[in-house]
Amino acid sequence: MLESSQTIRVRYNECDPMGIAHHAAYPIWFEMGRTESCRAAGCSYRELEASGTAIAVTRLEIRYRRPVRYDDLLDVVTRVERATRVKIEHSYEIRVDGVVTTEASTTVACVNRDGRPVAMPSILRAALGVDSD
Amino acid sequence: MLESSQTIRVRYNECDPMGIAHHAAYPIWFEMGRTESCRAAGCSYRELEASGTAIAVTRLEIRYRRPVRYDDLLDVVTRVERATRVKIEHSYEIRVDGVVTTEASTTVACVNRDGRPVAMPSILRAALGVDSD
Amino acid sequence: MLESSQTIRVRYNECDPMGIAHHAAYPIWFEMGRTESCRAAGCSYRELEASGTAIAVTRLEIRYRRPVRYDDLLDVVTRVERATRVKIEHSYEIRVDGVVTTEASTTVACVNRDGRPVAMPSILRAALGVDSD
Amino acid sequence: MLESSQTIRVRYNECDPMGIAHHAAYPIWFEMGRTESCRAAGCSYRELEASGTAIAVTRLEIRYRRPVRYDDLLDVVTRVERATRVKIEHSYEIRVDGVVTTEASTTVACVNRDGRPVAMPSILRAALGVDSD
Repeated sequence: MLESSQTIRVRYNECDPMGIAHHAAYPIWFEMGRTESCRAAGCSYRELEASGTAIAVTRLEIRYRRPVRYDDLLDVVTRVERATRVKIEHSYEIRVDGVVTTEASTTVACVNRDGRPVAMPSILRAALGVDSD
Repeated sequence: MLESSQTIRVRYNECDPMGIAHHAAYPIWFEMGRTESCRAAGCSYRELEASGTAIAVTRLEIRYRRPVRYDDLLDVVTRVERATRVKIEHSYEIRVDGVVTTEASTTVACVNRDGRPVAMPSILRAALGVDSD
Repeated sequence: MLESSQTIRVRYNECDPMGIAHHAAYPIWFEMGRTESCRAAGCSYRELEASGTAIAVTRLEIRYRRPVRYDDLLDVVTRVERATRVKIEHSYEIRVDGVVTTEASTTVACVNRDGRPVAMPSILRAALGVDSD
Repeated sequence: MLESSQTIRVRYNECDPMGIAHHAAYPIWFEMGRTESCRAAGCSYRELEASGTAIAVTRLEIRYRRPVRYDDLLDVVTRVERATRVKIEHSYEIRVDGVVTTEASTTVACVNRDGRPVAMPSILRAALGVDSD
């Protein structure tokens, strides 16, 4: 299924007194991965949200194998592992100089402006290659 | 085993355009849970780190059941589920007005200033009630 | 005019590889100062926003005199220096163990949901002690 | 003096319930501006810090003229306005589609690992074009 990759440089404020990226910075990078993955497939998350559908994260799992450091260039690889009409499962890998430092996965669901689950809009289904039936 | 609870008010900057707390804010609240849990048991994480031992998160899992909102008062309950001489597993619940909104767990390991795994210092073992043998 | 004080503990993720609070954490603490100052005067910022009026920061100035560290307990003192029908100027001091570490000031303006300037709602004017004429 | 420009995309988590970038996100973008400005002039901030000299922000001023939004592409222009042997003053402009949304300035000083002021290292002086006498 859909796979995309992007490069993210670790920001100074994302690092903690241990001199490594704080573990709470990673979900932000994965969200950027989803956004760019979606954009590459022809679906702007900004337009999706403007049209009334937001994406809510319902599950997050991260395995921190090795630390990443200030100014490191991260390759964040995002894959759509599974998509149904109501939710999407992504997996992620972060690599620095070809070495996998982090593995993660999330489940997201489409919600309306009141936060209630809604069926995935057709533009997103098309971007993800999900059958409409 | 060790259980503690603390109240955290959701900050404005922690909330996103959906009007709810962003999912990357939660690991920060769980870290505060670990810190206060540790302090309540007589072990200051600041002193631990000053003595040369840091705590590295190696695994994080979060289930977001219901959103939390700006200015909500969160009850963050932190439990030590298991502790060995090299790692600690915590579980967490967030409740708002008695309703569980979020469940999570982490694994942390002690590392030295170079990021290498080290045995848990005795002050932390004592705080956690881990046998020294 | 209105002055209030609150205690904020420096979070681990707010600190950077220098081992001190990152300079971008401070505006968040000042926002908490404004929120609590407002609440103490009988005006909930959450309700204000729910009623359609938001507070936009238009100016921020900070003098960082001394660093603050992980786990420090900050006394954040917030003062309303001036309030007109369209904007409010606050000043702030952060003290640790009685020593002033930081001085700051902001200007905020009321805006509607489209981001356009609006007159300050009466509940906020009353909280701030601003004449309605 | 030295001027550089870089493009930064506004992240989802940087935006607040008003749907615009939170005002505390901006100092982070300016820090990225300083880092890249420094790198373009042949000085890696990471190496500088590894060699024992850190850069502490002592003053920050921001004028928020217009909001910026999720997914906006920001042109962040960073200029060295003045540099002495102990401090550097930068100014910043953020532009979206050619329109200036934000103006800012900072003062930074070199400090050693204990946070004490030190003279600017020669590599940084050279990068900034500061006379060594």
